[in-house]
Amino acid sequence: MSPIGLAVIGAGYWGPNLVRTAIATPELQLERLCDLDEQRAQAVLGRYTTVKATTSYEQVLNDPAVSAVAIATPAATHFDLVRAALEAGKHVLVEKPLTSSVSEAVKLADLAEQSGLVLMCDHTYCYTPAVRRIRELIRGGEIGEVQYVDSVRINLGLVQPDVDVLWDLAPHDLSILDFVLPEDVTPVAVAAHTVDPIGNGRACIGYVSVWLSTGALAHMHVNWLSPTKIRTTLFGGSRRTIVWDDMNPSARLMLHDRGVDRVPGSALAPDDRRQALISYRVGDIQVPALPEREALMSVLAEFASAIAERRPALTDARAGIRVLELLEAATRSAEDGGSRVPVKLEAGE
Amino acid sequence: MSPIGLAVIGAGYWGPNLVRTAIATPELQLERLCDLDEQRAQAVLGRYTTVKATTSYEQVLNDPAVSAVAIATPAATHFDLVRAALEAGKHVLVEKPLTSSVSEAVKLADLAEQSGLVLMCDHTYCYTPAVRRIRELIRGGEIGEVQYVDSVRINLGLVQPDVDVLWDLAPHDLSILDFVLPEDVTPVAVAAHTVDPIGNGRACIGYVSVWLSTGALAHMHVNWLSPTKIRTTLFGGSRRTIVWDDMNPSARLMLHDRGVDRVPGSALAPDDRRQALISYRVGDIQVPALPEREALMSVLAEFASAIAERRPALTDARAGIRVLELLEAATRSAEDGGSRVPVKLEAGE
Amino acid sequence: MSPIGLAVIGAGYWGPNLVRTAIATPELQLERLCDLDEQRAQAVLGRYTTVKATTSYEQVLNDPAVSAVAIATPAATHFDLVRAALEAGKHVLVEKPLTSSVSEAVKLADLAEQSGLVLMCDHTYCYTPAVRRIRELIRGGEIGEVQYVDSVRINLGLVQPDVDVLWDLAPHDLSILDFVLPEDVTPVAVAAHTVDPIGNGRACIGYVSVWLSTGALAHMHVNWLSPTKIRTTLFGGSRRTIVWDDMNPSARLMLHDRGVDRVPGSALAPDDRRQALISYRVGDIQVPALPEREALMSVLAEFASAIAERRPALTDARAGIRVLELLEAATRSAEDGGSRVPVKLEAGE
Amino acid sequence: MSPIGLAVIGAGYWGPNLVRTAIATPELQLERLCDLDEQRAQAVLGRYTTVKATTSYEQVLNDPAVSAVAIATPAATHFDLVRAALEAGKHVLVEKPLTSSVSEAVKLADLAEQSGLVLMCDHTYCYTPAVRRIRELIRGGEIGEVQYVDSVRINLGLVQPDVDVLWDLAPHDLSILDFVLPEDVTPVAVAAHTVDPIGNGRACIGYVSVWLSTGALAHMHVNWLSPTKIRTTLFGGSRRTIVWDDMNPSARLMLHDRGVDRVPGSALAPDDRRQALISYRVGDIQVPALPEREALMSVLAEFASAIAERRPALTDARAGIRVLELLEAATRSAEDGGSRVPVKLEAGE
Repeated sequence: MSPIGLAVIGAGYWGPNLVRTAIATPELQLERLCDLDEQRAQAVLGRYTTVKATTSYEQVLNDPAVSAVAIATPAATHFDLVRAALEAGKHVLVEKPLTSSVSEAVKLADLAEQSGLVLMCDHTYCYTPAVRRIRELIRGGEIGEVQYVDSVRINLGLVQPDVDVLWDLAPHDLSILDFVLPEDVTPVAVAAHTVDPIGNGRACIGYVSVWLSTGALAHMHVNWLSPTKIRTTLFGGSRRTIVWDDMNPSARLMLHDRGVDRVPGSALAPDDRRQALISYRVGDIQVPALPEREALMSVLAEFASAIAERRPALTDARAGIRVLELLEAATRSAEDGGSRVPVKLEAGE
Repeated sequence: MSPIGLAVIGAGYWGPNLVRTAIATPELQLERLCDLDEQRAQAVLGRYTTVKATTSYEQVLNDPAVSAVAIATPAATHFDLVRAALEAGKHVLVEKPLTSSVSEAVKLADLAEQSGLVLMCDHTYCYTPAVRRIRELIRGGEIGEVQYVDSVRINLGLVQPDVDVLWDLAPHDLSILDFVLPEDVTPVAVAAHTVDPIGNGRACIGYVSVWLSTGALAHMHVNWLSPTKIRTTLFGGSRRTIVWDDMNPSARLMLHDRGVDRVPGSALAPDDRRQALISYRVGDIQVPALPEREALMSVLAEFASAIAERRPALTDARAGIRVLELLEAATRSAEDGGSRVPVKLEAGE
Repeated sequence: MSPIGLAVIGAGYWGPNLVRTAIATPELQLERLCDLDEQRAQAVLGRYTTVKATTSYEQVLNDPAVSAVAIATPAATHFDLVRAALEAGKHVLVEKPLTSSVSEAVKLADLAEQSGLVLMCDHTYCYTPAVRRIRELIRGGEIGEVQYVDSVRINLGLVQPDVDVLWDLAPHDLSILDFVLPEDVTPVAVAAHTVDPIGNGRACIGYVSVWLSTGALAHMHVNWLSPTKIRTTLFGGSRRTIVWDDMNPSARLMLHDRGVDRVPGSALAPDDRRQALISYRVGDIQVPALPEREALMSVLAEFASAIAERRPALTDARAGIRVLELLEAATRSAEDGGSRVPVKLEAGE
Repeated sequence: MSPIGLAVIGAGYWGPNLVRTAIATPELQLERLCDLDEQRAQAVLGRYTTVKATTSYEQVLNDPAVSAVAIATPAATHFDLVRAALEAGKHVLVEKPLTSSVSEAVKLADLAEQSGLVLMCDHTYCYTPAVRRIRELIRGGEIGEVQYVDSVRINLGLVQPDVDVLWDLAPHDLSILDFVLPEDVTPVAVAAHTVDPIGNGRACIGYVSVWLSTGALAHMHVNWLSPTKIRTTLFGGSRRTIVWDDMNPSARLMLHDRGVDRVPGSALAPDDRRQALISYRVGDIQVPALPEREALMSVLAEFASAIAERRPALTDARAGIRVLELLEAATRSAEDGGSRVPVKLEAGE
């Protein structure tokens, strides 16, 4: 099968990674890099390339050699760019967040489905070997029932001109949550607390609580101001707990056979006997070996496969919509001083 | 000066530490260890001691050799035990939380003041070399204005029969916050989210947000179910940021000269120029050498000094009351689904 | 059975630990603490004790209530003190190194055996849960054949007045090596490089290589001048490798299923095909849960058991002699510029 | 100035890095990638390149557009390839080790000097921001006199078909040592212990001691069999100590103001007073901020500058010869059971 012709749109922060990875993906043929700033596009491509730079999105969409586009432009431009691409009959991979609102995203999802085109969200983290393994462990029942999720994603981040820290960083955690939870565990409410301590005009620190249909709680801390970089998520289960420390390459995942159990039947015990009916497990820790594979390589491979097999991508527009539902609810909550905002999502895949 | 006669009340979890430390404190003369279970008290004292075990609190209070008591019993008993001690003319050191409610605590504080007796809260962490240094750094202006505080205190904890995780663990973080913040920075509102995923009847995981009078946010994560032990607090400042990792004895405190600054005057800049007016500092990290001193030794030394000098202890009943105000507000918020509960504290010391 | 009467000799660095632990050991009855400096002994015992301090070793040896002594005095005094104790019919626990020379140690071992008395070396590390587990893993065949051992034991140490860094720190590593290796794997030669960069008159940094009968190499780095504390030992095996990081309480032992294998039969392969016949395993890591038990508690329990059961202790005088043989060889090598010194040890237990 | 025409020779392990970096270096114009296996060369260049692949080294040397070559082939081929390049009037950058022997290296160094050509060794680590800073700290007197150097460079490494672990890994540590030590501190003797526990036919584990002219000792541990990756070097000084942990990106360098001092004048003190004349410093730790710059970018920039400025490169052939002198001595020592082999190096730069 001949490779799929691809154009990358946007030569800013993420675009160069798409270019570098597309070049290394045999299933794709990189045709163009498009940016309003041609010099920037040319600089990303370098002096030794046969790939063409262009400033004209229209030209890209009219190019019959281009079957698919990968869009890495500011979020506010996604809706127009994706719609135009779909209308031009191109498959689309788009950076998170899919669009700036749920309603826009739904339109795009519908359009893609009607057109029989792939519309895939680049939820990059879902394609890391660590998150894939977490999904297997959780969905395979290895950790038992999910009791809590706690995620910390903080570092000295680029203060963004167009989005706050929730819209910049929380999509990572929300898309991971969407990806790894069992299909029948769904968010039911969201609350968020944010602050802007440097007077930047948009939140730099955020805390998001997501209540799940099982009664479990998922919590996220996102922060642009921390001088120390932390990327740690706990998935607490009734049988085991996963600690994912993405800054520790020698033990990214630790599977702890430790926890607190309630002895069955103790629910009816009078209060003063309760303590006796708690038991503690202090077992071994397992550090599973993970394959070394760059997530973005897997993203592009999945995009190419979905196109070839005429099927929705693993992180399709519906996944992007579910993330946007939670982001919108979080924003409403933050604006309302942290109140609990109910959400009702369509069932995931 | 002859040492101050002391009795320790309670031979459970913390009492043995008080006994061991009191024995090593020259300013104190340990007279008795009192527990309802005499065998337990005797076991704590061991086979080689000259200290007497007793089951009678009354006898302790009637003993003229006993000038002070250190109370380490369940929180629900504090009010009665402390009141009786004060009425018997004894100085009192009491474990956190001071009592089960603000109103009770105020009564005890008033009683102590009227009687000219020391009523000290054992806010142990405030006496660690790390927290003392943090207080100096913050109050001395070293980190600039406090922009945020983020604390994580999680481990596989003893699920308590009488208190939830907020009342068990959050007093540590709240008392530290009270201790280190400048006097003119005060909490104005609290919200808390808690869950009980093991069906234990009381919360095992809690998240507490404390809004400060400056607009800064302090956030705490307390958790009894985590198989991995984390004790990390960030104090983000406009000039520097302190990272306190209490599990890292070789670098408990790190003072980062890193951060995000807004260039003065940029508040009025139009949105599209905003980004240009943010600057990033990436400077050195300093790891200050800290003295090695057990915090509880300092607690008992402070208790003895306050008695000798007839002055309030550094962590007096008023500090305990401020912590209780926040705990009560957090509990109200948690019961109300996480709503923002205003608080109004008396000024601290 | 009534407890065994014990006296602790020496109230310096280690003696207080022996006192504290003996007091908590039901099988022992601590009768006396003996030191030339009575005030120091009294200070160690504290104000609340019923244990007697004494300056007279003779008195201790004449006391019929004392059946055993635990000696924690400078190494140079061990020979005389242990001999006197054995001659007085007392069982003896003695700090490492057993004596200052092999020849002295052999005399003591013979004397103890002839007298039917326990002479035990306090090779404390052998009684840690970590080293016990390492012994089980190695002797149980879990890691396959031992290919190498590498130990780093460095920190800002107390520069000793009477011994160099080899005699101060290497006994720990050598006694561990003796304890965990299979009985049929024995040292055959030793080389040591040492330096005294502060002009202290005795070595502050040492490197010791111990060649084993299987062709494997054990190497140790001991250092008093390092500002950072490292206590890490690797036990490389043909099937698995143990990494023991004693400074990491949350994962002291890691059992790596990773390594390099030679495909059987490839020994005869011509050189250019060799590479193809190497295979790499990159498997999981296991972190075994270890019981929390203070090693010195286990040392005293073993001492008491050996006395009660009239059997040699697990780390008996013969173990101490094997360590001394290696220490003497290392010293000879270091004095000779690092030459390889053959050793011939009696078979271990 | 127009860029310098470059060809990369060798498309194996390191060549692709040279290609990638050369492409990003404005001062260079990458003309060709040469490998005996044209398909491999083409695969390294990818589908989108304008750079030509070739199998003919002769063609490269005859190409007038090529002024310089970067050689990344097996060590045994270096001598012939470098000589041919120099004879063709090309500047040369060559991977470590420069050649397989000192005598060959001297011939090349002489040839380059006579021809007025740059012959540079790719001692990559010397161009890391960390090692540059270490050099500044040591040569600037910040840590005082160097008392010891201890380096650990271990991981599950590729067992090499043509070199043992000493020749594979120790060149890194030896070239760093050569680079950072003050000019008047030179190696005077070497000893090495190696083992081949997997029966591979060449050493997989090595320990190298290098005695310095000041009496200090530098020690290196290199190991291909360790499942855990460690890259830590200590530079112990009389005033401060540098700990370089290359696996810790958040604190690669730590400058410890901790150590042991001898009080001046105490050299004549009688032995029993010695201890009193040692003093300990326990000061702060400083973690200097380091620029983020890929070392190989700096290597190529230095290569281009040296060519443009017609001067020897910072790590010139003489540096490569000094490393080879130590490697040869280490090999002789290892073959001789670890004996101390004197070395006499020309003064460094």
